[in-house]
Amino acid sequence: MKISAEFDGGNIECLACDDPADIRLAIRPDGQADFRQWFHFRLTGARGRDCTLHLTNAGATSYPGGWDGYRAVASYDRRDWFRVDTSYADGVLTIRHVPQADQVYFAYFAPYSRERHADFVAECAARPGATLEVLGTTLDGQDLDYLRIGETTTDKPDLWVIARQHPGETMASWWMEGFLRRLLDPADPVARTLRAKATFHVVPNMNPDGSRRGHLRTNAAGADLNREWGVATMERSPEVFLVRQAMRDRGIDFCLDVHGDEVLAYNFLVTAFGIPSLTERQRQLHLDYAEALVRASPDFQTAKGYPPSAPGKANLALCSNYLAETFGCLAMTLEQPFKDTIETPDERAGWSPERADRLGRANLDAMLAVVDRLKQR
Amino acid sequence: MKISAEFDGGNIECLACDDPADIRLAIRPDGQADFRQWFHFRLTGARGRDCTLHLTNAGATSYPGGWDGYRAVASYDRRDWFRVDTSYADGVLTIRHVPQADQVYFAYFAPYSRERHADFVAECAARPGATLEVLGTTLDGQDLDYLRIGETTTDKPDLWVIARQHPGETMASWWMEGFLRRLLDPADPVARTLRAKATFHVVPNMNPDGSRRGHLRTNAAGADLNREWGVATMERSPEVFLVRQAMRDRGIDFCLDVHGDEVLAYNFLVTAFGIPSLTERQRQLHLDYAEALVRASPDFQTAKGYPPSAPGKANLALCSNYLAETFGCLAMTLEQPFKDTIETPDERAGWSPERADRLGRANLDAMLAVVDRLKQR
Amino acid sequence: MKISAEFDGGNIECLACDDPADIRLAIRPDGQADFRQWFHFRLTGARGRDCTLHLTNAGATSYPGGWDGYRAVASYDRRDWFRVDTSYADGVLTIRHVPQADQVYFAYFAPYSRERHADFVAECAARPGATLEVLGTTLDGQDLDYLRIGETTTDKPDLWVIARQHPGETMASWWMEGFLRRLLDPADPVARTLRAKATFHVVPNMNPDGSRRGHLRTNAAGADLNREWGVATMERSPEVFLVRQAMRDRGIDFCLDVHGDEVLAYNFLVTAFGIPSLTERQRQLHLDYAEALVRASPDFQTAKGYPPSAPGKANLALCSNYLAETFGCLAMTLEQPFKDTIETPDERAGWSPERADRLGRANLDAMLAVVDRLKQR
Amino acid sequence: MKISAEFDGGNIECLACDDPADIRLAIRPDGQADFRQWFHFRLTGARGRDCTLHLTNAGATSYPGGWDGYRAVASYDRRDWFRVDTSYADGVLTIRHVPQADQVYFAYFAPYSRERHADFVAECAARPGATLEVLGTTLDGQDLDYLRIGETTTDKPDLWVIARQHPGETMASWWMEGFLRRLLDPADPVARTLRAKATFHVVPNMNPDGSRRGHLRTNAAGADLNREWGVATMERSPEVFLVRQAMRDRGIDFCLDVHGDEVLAYNFLVTAFGIPSLTERQRQLHLDYAEALVRASPDFQTAKGYPPSAPGKANLALCSNYLAETFGCLAMTLEQPFKDTIETPDERAGWSPERADRLGRANLDAMLAVVDRLKQR
Repeated sequence: MKISAEFDGGNIECLACDDPADIRLAIRPDGQADFRQWFHFRLTGARGRDCTLHLTNAGATSYPGGWDGYRAVASYDRRDWFRVDTSYADGVLTIRHVPQADQVYFAYFAPYSRERHADFVAECAARPGATLEVLGTTLDGQDLDYLRIGETTTDKPDLWVIARQHPGETMASWWMEGFLRRLLDPADPVARTLRAKATFHVVPNMNPDGSRRGHLRTNAAGADLNREWGVATMERSPEVFLVRQAMRDRGIDFCLDVHGDEVLAYNFLVTAFGIPSLTERQRQLHLDYAEALVRASPDFQTAKGYPPSAPGKANLALCSNYLAETFGCLAMTLEQPFKDTIETPDERAGWSPERADRLGRANLDAMLAVVDRLKQR
Repeated sequence: MKISAEFDGGNIECLACDDPADIRLAIRPDGQADFRQWFHFRLTGARGRDCTLHLTNAGATSYPGGWDGYRAVASYDRRDWFRVDTSYADGVLTIRHVPQADQVYFAYFAPYSRERHADFVAECAARPGATLEVLGTTLDGQDLDYLRIGETTTDKPDLWVIARQHPGETMASWWMEGFLRRLLDPADPVARTLRAKATFHVVPNMNPDGSRRGHLRTNAAGADLNREWGVATMERSPEVFLVRQAMRDRGIDFCLDVHGDEVLAYNFLVTAFGIPSLTERQRQLHLDYAEALVRASPDFQTAKGYPPSAPGKANLALCSNYLAETFGCLAMTLEQPFKDTIETPDERAGWSPERADRLGRANLDAMLAVVDRLKQR
Repeated sequence: MKISAEFDGGNIECLACDDPADIRLAIRPDGQADFRQWFHFRLTGARGRDCTLHLTNAGATSYPGGWDGYRAVASYDRRDWFRVDTSYADGVLTIRHVPQADQVYFAYFAPYSRERHADFVAECAARPGATLEVLGTTLDGQDLDYLRIGETTTDKPDLWVIARQHPGETMASWWMEGFLRRLLDPADPVARTLRAKATFHVVPNMNPDGSRRGHLRTNAAGADLNREWGVATMERSPEVFLVRQAMRDRGIDFCLDVHGDEVLAYNFLVTAFGIPSLTERQRQLHLDYAEALVRASPDFQTAKGYPPSAPGKANLALCSNYLAETFGCLAMTLEQPFKDTIETPDERAGWSPERADRLGRANLDAMLAVVDRLKQR
Repeated sequence: MKISAEFDGGNIECLACDDPADIRLAIRPDGQADFRQWFHFRLTGARGRDCTLHLTNAGATSYPGGWDGYRAVASYDRRDWFRVDTSYADGVLTIRHVPQADQVYFAYFAPYSRERHADFVAECAARPGATLEVLGTTLDGQDLDYLRIGETTTDKPDLWVIARQHPGETMASWWMEGFLRRLLDPADPVARTLRAKATFHVVPNMNPDGSRRGHLRTNAAGADLNREWGVATMERSPEVFLVRQAMRDRGIDFCLDVHGDEVLAYNFLVTAFGIPSLTERQRQLHLDYAEALVRASPDFQTAKGYPPSAPGKANLALCSNYLAETFGCLAMTLEQPFKDTIETPDERAGWSPERADRLGRANLDAMLAVVDRLKQR
């Protein structure tokens, strides 16, 4: 038996792997910061054995509340990810599984590699109307890829959609595949209408370094990108600095920032209603978007979510608050569960790449509902 | 050069095929009835030649008004169908095209063969929750295939979806692929919700004989199935007789009957508002369905369509009128264009298999909007 | 429960289908001739039932010896064909099977439809260097498709490869897919070399009418095409007449005629050694081809096969004898089993579409071994 | 415009990228060793521009002779790799290309990533008869994957096939895909026979660290693995140490070590004829293997290759020499070109992933020719 995590997005420390009944592991922290929750590793040589894996430092992770009701995902073929028996007690997360294959990968959520990103970006860039640009370079030297769908014009609204500020929230990448595939579908009438009415600016992965390193929340410098929007620098958070600059240069009338939430078993939107300059227009657009998304996807709801910020007290270091405040536009954070949706559960897969993909597609319906009112004069 | 149509769904008579500049063809009538409009044939040996094809009896077809603004479809590979230069004058439909391949197929709309039907039915039948039955036998001896999604229970509404009563309206089959693929998608939340709330009864092809024979509107006995619902017999219209019987036996709370329209360049619903027993409930459900479909698909609209029947004067021989009257349920006819949608045109493909597929998918959103109110007590 | 065969290549008569333990069927004869052995039908409504199907007239078929050791094929999804429990006694062929799906297709061998032919021909015709022509029209009005790979020149040998003279021998079509796909593979060095050295003339299906009608051996007029080569007329056997004419016009230095054999559980070549004008060159080329094919495919062998014709006594009505005699070229018949290969059996699939495909591919190796010596001066 | 190489297998240093007519680059050396030749980078922002890229230190690479007649490969979609205009003069390799897309990747040969390796290994491991093991850990902490096809028994010969000792020789991975896919094909008779007669031990990538780091010849410690077979240690060359140990433990009757050659425009085998203990049996097996491979693949030849070692003077640090000497078995090195095959050139692709795949498949034919004689008593 062997545990390894030396690959794209891998994260685990193996403490003991001799006894299948007591495999002892620890989640490594993000490189420069004391965040930890994401794990992703491969177990080989355990086919047919009754394995018990203990993540011994689960109680010391960033969101210990995330382990209640959580089940880890596993895959034999790296495509089909299913949930496995998982329990949490006394600070230890315990996974029990009898692998049916010579290898099994375990993860916090279905991983999404840089190679898949590169293939997907190439696929999108080859579609009519799509343009690929590199906005700049990350601290690890990676390209920060950006796709534009449609031409930037002065009369059409500019919609920004970004994902993976927090690299451990891989569902945001699966969401992005569904969103972009539908947006680029030559036959889909919602996509065709949106492409005609608006310009889309998409950053599929805001945090390539953290993603590749297997981080939970931070980039190579230890920065939580979603706390950097007011203070970003090229030294500490070039990803935010570069995207923020591009938003200023190219215009912004809408932003959706796609995330995952460790604790809540719901899909929900986070408002920017706590910003000092909130307008009724922003508030109504948000409500209309949410209502349209409820209609388009029974996996989405508005009853549960984060408690609202007190009026004027929103943290402007967060992307959506910063953008809503700075540009007066509709800006939202979309949260997806690591667990499952309580009201529409899937026993086998939980919240999954396929379901995140479908939610990405449904967001086009919500965009259609508001697109005519997004352009700011 | 050679013209042939001796294959599934083929229809043409070749009058002259010696001179590429003057290929003369005639559309054959449905076997036992004086309908004609559907054509589907293969031209070989014309690569690189400037071909002009005259459908000489276009003026004597069932819907000569259908040729105004119409463009024929062509394909080299039998998968990608594109529109070609077509004009209509003096009773002759003229297609001009320089084939880029050794063979080119031309058709009134992208064809859909019995083999594809059989493959698709096999695919659907293999999905969890789906059941395949044969309701009976057509006059040509073919199976009348039926799929049930979900179990028949007394508390859930029974939704019927049928297509291809008129065999020449192949867009109904492409619509059906999109509808069923989404309905059976294990990850789609709209489909999952609908599968939980309702039982679906689907007849993907109501008229296998007419489809295989290359008819426009009738079955092997010359019956226009959508004029048989009050009078169907096993001798003349077993397809309707058998489905009608199954509706009675299994229950019916909703029916969508999918068609194509030769003349109108729109997707639209046909109401059953002219039936004698129309209820306000039926009227409201129809309006709500249509409104939801408008929201889900910019390719659908409600402004244009057939003029309404006078109150109480609806032709009860038509499927949707018959069902609405007999069962008090919501019953509608959905019409798609042979041409293109005027407001959302696609220069290359016109209305196409892919777009029909997407409209089929969008209908699930509309069903979701009304499903909770369909069950009749 | 229901039995049907009203589809492309279908053949069965249902005598009784009420009792799953005693389903009684009969194989229909070829339309105009007293041949029968091919069957292909669909059974629906029998999921989970212990079915016993009796082909009651198996003893009166063309090759009753073919039933010894034979197992029927079945499929739920129309792609994967597996063998099922089959026995033969007292003139009755009995199939026992508990279907795991709502529908199951049974056949003598995995069927190959006209639609698949049309799709495959379109795929081949789109490849660089391939040309599609229609040689003429069958009695049922179908196109007789022909593919040429490479240009006809005076200095390169002309190789003809034909299949399905006997329509019930569908393994010849699966063989053809493997053969043509490899021949057209832009990366395969054997194919590249052969394409550079020779011109290929391919008739993927010599008998479209018999194939679609579900015949065993004959065309629409009841002609066994492989007994027509000396006497073919446009009235009785246009398929042979047209191909023979094309061979004369375009040249012929080699012919492989692909078949299936009902009785022998081997792949083997049939020589033309019994023709009056046999040359040592022809004899040696045949032996070298066979030796190379033995090397390339362990599924092929030379020990078992038909007994040789007495010198000078070969039936010149057969394709390979006729061509060898008339053109002095290497001409062979390749036989594949309906059963399985005795020495390399596959318990689940027997001889199968996939294995026929691989044998088709291996024949390129054999062609490479002789191609430099095929051109006749 | 931007150049980047910060990804799996990337290698370039960008000196200047302002002027499309004078993009100046340098190939970085292997991390711990003074080898350099492999390059792999992405150019963005140059669509439609006439780009000239200078690899300024090409004259100082490991095999400057490799640049004569060499053309770089490029890809827009990361799947299709084509050759581009390349010239070498005065120590500078110059690539000229007008990108037709927003991004273009350039490489020394079509790259093969760790993610693709992981997907491919997962695919193979899922096939019946295949077993996946991890032999140990590389210096960078990666798994050293090993596949066994068939059971280890005492009576069957043990065949080893290994690739990518030199990480820059990516054609060895493409070769491996073809080899393993055919070996695991359930329908291929050559593969079925080999699987019945022998046990296969396969190490698809001997040098995961060098591959991921974008090295030409060495592992993370700077060791050229194919010079380590007599002296391997866990500290310097664990990859060789571990595989060598597995060979001893599990038995070895054959080894094929797959490589690429920078200079020679041929596929060829390297003999172990220079080992002190050479037997006539080894010599004959090699010749028979080579002859069978010539027959199976016109892309392979025996006329050109490395000059033979003087008798008894072979370098026993090389894998094939070491194994032939130590185990008395047939052991060979297979070399493929980075350029193209002189006698069977492909203008567009040169030697390519697809062609390497086909050569991998053809090696099964050669193995079949000798398999019965490999087992040593």
